Amino acid sequence: MRLYGVIEDIGERKMSTVKVSHGGTISSVEVEDGVSLLEAVSRVKDMHVDASCGGRGTCGKCKVKILKGDLSQPSGSETRFLSNKELENGYRLACMVPVTGNIDVLVNGINAHSRILTEHNGFSGKVNPIIKKKYLVLPEPSLGDQRSDLSRILGSIPLNNPLVSLSLRQKIPTLLRNAGYSITAVFSSDSLISVEEGNTENLNYGIAIDIGTTTIAAYLLDTNTGEILDTISGLNSQKVFGADVISRIEYSMQGTGKLELLQNKIVTQVSDLCIFLTDRNNISRENIYSITLAGNTTMLHLFYGIDPAGIAVAPFIPGFLGAMDLSSSAFKDFPLTCTIYSLPSISGYVGADIVAGILATRMHEREELSLLLDVGTNGEIVFGNKEKLYCCSTAAGPAFEGAHISCGLGGIAGAVDSAVLADDHIKCTTIGNEKAIGICGSGIIDIVAVLLKSGLVEFTGRIRDVDEVEDSTAILLKKLKIDRDGPAFMIAKASETGTGEDVVFTQGDIREVQLAKAAISAGIFSLLNEAGRSLSEIDHVFIAGGFGSYLSRESAAAIGLIPSELLDRTEYAGNTAGLGAITCSLSEESFKDCKKITELTEYVELSSDSFFNMKYMEEMVFPEY
Amino acid sequence: MRLYGVIEDIGERKMSTVKVSHGGTISSVEVEDGVSLLEAVSRVKDMHVDASCGGRGTCGKCKVKILKGDLSQPSGSETRFLSNKELENGYRLACMVPVTGNIDVLVNGINAHSRILTEHNGFSGKVNPIIKKKYLVLPEPSLGDQRSDLSRILGSIPLNNPLVSLSLRQKIPTLLRNAGYSITAVFSSDSLISVEEGNTENLNYGIAIDIGTTTIAAYLLDTNTGEILDTISGLNSQKVFGADVISRIEYSMQGTGKLELLQNKIVTQVSDLCIFLTDRNNISRENIYSITLAGNTTMLHLFYGIDPAGIAVAPFIPGFLGAMDLSSSAFKDFPLTCTIYSLPSISGYVGADIVAGILATRMHEREELSLLLDVGTNGEIVFGNKEKLYCCSTAAGPAFEGAHISCGLGGIAGAVDSAVLADDHIKCTTIGNEKAIGICGSGIIDIVAVLLKSGLVEFTGRIRDVDEVEDSTAILLKKLKIDRDGPAFMIAKASETGTGEDVVFTQGDIREVQLAKAAISAGIFSLLNEAGRSLSEIDHVFIAGGFGSYLSRESAAAIGLIPSELLDRTEYAGNTAGLGAITCSLSEESFKDCKKITELTEYVELSSDSFFNMKYMEEMVFPEY
Repeated sequence: MRLYGVIEDIGERKMSTVKVSHGGTISSVEVEDGVSLLEAVSRVKDMHVDASCGGRGTCGKCKVKILKGDLSQPSGSETRFLSNKELENGYRLACMVPVTGNIDVLVNGINAHSRILTEHNGFSGKVNPIIKKKYLVLPEPSLGDQRSDLSRILGSIPLNNPLVSLSLRQKIPTLLRNAGYSITAVFSSDSLISVEEGNTENLNYGIAIDIGTTTIAAYLLDTNTGEILDTISGLNSQKVFGADVISRIEYSMQGTGKLELLQNKIVTQVSDLCIFLTDRNNISRENIYSITLAGNTTMLHLFYGIDPAGIAVAPFIPGFLGAMDLSSSAFKDFPLTCTIYSLPSISGYVGADIVAGILATRMHEREELSLLLDVGTNGEIVFGNKEKLYCCSTAAGPAFEGAHISCGLGGIAGAVDSAVLADDHIKCTTIGNEKAIGICGSGIIDIVAVLLKSGLVEFTGRIRDVDEVEDSTAILLKKLKIDRDGPAFMIAKASETGTGEDVVFTQGDIREVQLAKAAISAGIFSLLNEAGRSLSEIDHVFIAGGFGSYLSRESAAAIGLIPSELLDRTEYAGNTAGLGAITCSLSEESFKDCKKITELTEYVELSSDSFFNMKYMEEMVFPEY
Repeated sequence: MRLYGVIEDIGERKMSTVKVSHGGTISSVEVEDGVSLLEAVSRVKDMHVDASCGGRGTCGKCKVKILKGDLSQPSGSETRFLSNKELENGYRLACMVPVTGNIDVLVNGINAHSRILTEHNGFSGKVNPIIKKKYLVLPEPSLGDQRSDLSRILGSIPLNNPLVSLSLRQKIPTLLRNAGYSITAVFSSDSLISVEEGNTENLNYGIAIDIGTTTIAAYLLDTNTGEILDTISGLNSQKVFGADVISRIEYSMQGTGKLELLQNKIVTQVSDLCIFLTDRNNISRENIYSITLAGNTTMLHLFYGIDPAGIAVAPFIPGFLGAMDLSSSAFKDFPLTCTIYSLPSISGYVGADIVAGILATRMHEREELSLLLDVGTNGEIVFGNKEKLYCCSTAAGPAFEGAHISCGLGGIAGAVDSAVLADDHIKCTTIGNEKAIGICGSGIIDIVAVLLKSGLVEFTGRIRDVDEVEDSTAILLKKLKIDRDGPAFMIAKASETGTGEDVVFTQGDIREVQLAKAAISAGIFSLLNEAGRSLSEIDHVFIAGGFGSYLSRESAAAIGLIPSELLDRTEYAGNTAGLGAITCSLSEESFKDCKKITELTEYVELSSDSFFNMKYMEEMVFPEY
């Protein structure tokens, strides 16, 4: 997925101006002719590109209205996704329109409403970036001061015996003389990273990235001030090779070159995101000194090209777990020269994203007991306080990410994202107020909660027969549909949907949710059991991950995903993996704290835990209403 | 100079057997047809190849006698260097003879008498190699022991947080499983370097190299036992770009690519020597884990491709001075995967070779005061004891290396290497008892000593007129020659030399020697002055370098190069630079000691030292006889 294609050679190419109206403001970008309108629009700052199809014209979600400008004929995929009326009114799919002259374009739903995993509570600590810059006016050499060029520099920065790469050593003598001994040293706690002519102290940028199995979120940081300058997210480009961790690993094992292919995909995507962020913010690539990665254990293995096969089968052994810092030159053709840091992981299924989450929520520093829930394909759970943390991973299945659900979807425009019981029907909303095209995680939980509360589904998960339900809910049954696969609830009829097909929620879907919620809640109880603690002792519950941010706490408690007594202590922590990566980039101490976190945290292996297995069976049922 | 050409692809090529008779033993080597006989011979263990012309047929020194075997017709260069009688008797130049079938060859003077800079007192410390191996039978992973593959290994070696390269991390998971968790870890004090299947503890080799401006010496080491398995030396392949440090630096400044060219030359030569040593000793390249380099500051700059320009002009600032350890992967296409270490230097003109010399002579650990003299183009001098060391470099000029001397030569076969006053003539010897072709350093000093002692030259350096000398030496005057350039001594007449031209020693040559010896002895006095010490307090004098090893101490004292009162305390220390590099390879502590040595040693800059300048003028005269 190279949505963020970067034109390196702009030589003689014609440039055009694209004026983008969005949310009441107009932004203007200069682009090279031939670039897609989607790419042009995405260069506007704060415009978040939902890259669900990667700009291939297959998702139909980048609809824009052309206000002015010559355009090509609509493509086949545009006539499929857009009505004749829309086409007449100037609507087009931005990814299908090549810029060949000046264009004025109105951007509405395109991204404003798509869910991006870039929200969090922000970095609030003391800024002490992992990579520092210091302007130095060095004494010129003389017969009385014959220190080497390198020693002259190192004598003025607060490091003992830092590492210095050969290429930097090669660069220093000429640079020092050209600069008249006024230079800016760029360094981390153990390396002299670069030397620049003159005073460039104010140009110190880093990029923090959370590599999720499904989504990647990247944050451009001014590491001097701690400000988050820009963010971008997209679907993990490895997704076509498998939706979840296990299928990615299995793909990597399919023969020679597969692991390298997966690595190449994600490394390219990371570098594309970085270049995109720097270009969009007019920041020189040379002033990006660090990329700080969080991600689950498997995603980091794939990024580094380290065989993750051992993670897939018992006893679930990863190749590595520790933090890494590596010159980007270790990656062939990487377009930035910087240090790539990654946070350490705890086990094969409790990765650096969770360490980042602990860091972001500071639960490793708290006196009180807290619980961190990161619910995705796996549900990772952490429990404890600054004395000791326990963690586990439960194979929740991807139900809460919309997978294995008949009309399930990720958090994209058109996904049903909430449901409430109205007077006579289930009232749903969709992301971007688009026509429904499926149901995402928060919608799934809301729907199950509604069905349970209204008595349409009993606590065992069985959809009740029509004659079993009370009058007050009978109206709802109008929406019930029965087909070959058994009973199902009609969420949106074909005539009302964006796909032209029914959006339904089936008995099978309810079973998937049961399995998933049982795994999570049994995991919570297992950690409590391990720690010898009870629910009532928990002071905070942090719900992490993109899913968590949109989840209704009440619905989560209603279906038993979170014990209902914790409801008043539950807060959304946002993308804690992203925030943890940001925190490490902005705070050297925090990066070091990650190691302490891994030492403080005991991994509880649930697959061999009889208490968990018992609890898992118990928690398969929903609360009774 | 790719004398040591290595045939990578031996595919279908025909092999022949070369039987080499040398010093009473016969060695047999298998070589690919087409390889030169010189290369075949050089593959015999302990056969030192003098590579003065690089196998191009221009020095005529690789004369061998063919005992049996079909041969090609003599080349033009052979008919030039060999008499008809020699050709009839089967003599050939080995470099000009391609092996095309089985050959029996007698090797006599070829190398046995050529001077190689590989002699020294040997390593005598406790072997604790800089790179260690440890065989590990690791516990297999289980649900109760879910450490990562990497942690499982690191948990069994005595290192905290060692560096591990990305490529090794990528290799470990598969290797560990293939090896059934029985592996050998290869590590240094701060890095896990490699992991090998099974027990390979006994295969631990390193190569120590002294990169001299003129000569390179390489030592193959069994770093488990400390044994020096093999040695080889050759002329520095950069020599065509300048004989001395300054001319090399000047060449590097001549434009784009020149520094890279010099770097490429020396890196290629180092790797060729390494490959040659491993192949000749049937050691796998994979089992060479370290290359440890000593060399002067400029040679190390050129090896690393770091601009040495600052060294050439006041205030003589090098790019770097510290020790380095670097993966060989930092060098493009380097044929070994190992760590390249280099010793630290003290200043632009007191390099790692001198640090190695201090280490080898242990003068930094001695209570008594010692003096280290390394005489080459520059004379480096170190004085002091374990409390404090002083060092300097004097621009002695290359006279003692045979340069700037009318018939001067390096220490190659045919060079006059000693001279004594016989009854009625100056009796000279040559290296390898060949016909004289010139005079090397030790010969130059002997000749000057003889001339001074016999009164043929007065203490001012002037060659006396015939009527000034006493009867007893008159006979010597028969050898005196006078040409356009003034008076000169005939050392060997054209009819007796290997070149067909006179070998002479001129008034100008004597002046060169005066300048050189004045620089050295003034340097010695300057260090004594700096330290507030006197000659009589010196306990040891170490003469280092290839030149030193063949020098007559008496002659050196006779010309005033060494103060005569130190004569009884003077010893040849051999190639201390090589021994220092060997010592670092075999002893981690010694490598660390090098840093202490650089801190203990104060560099005295003579160019701005008025005491030195005064002494330099004083020492220009020879002792009086």
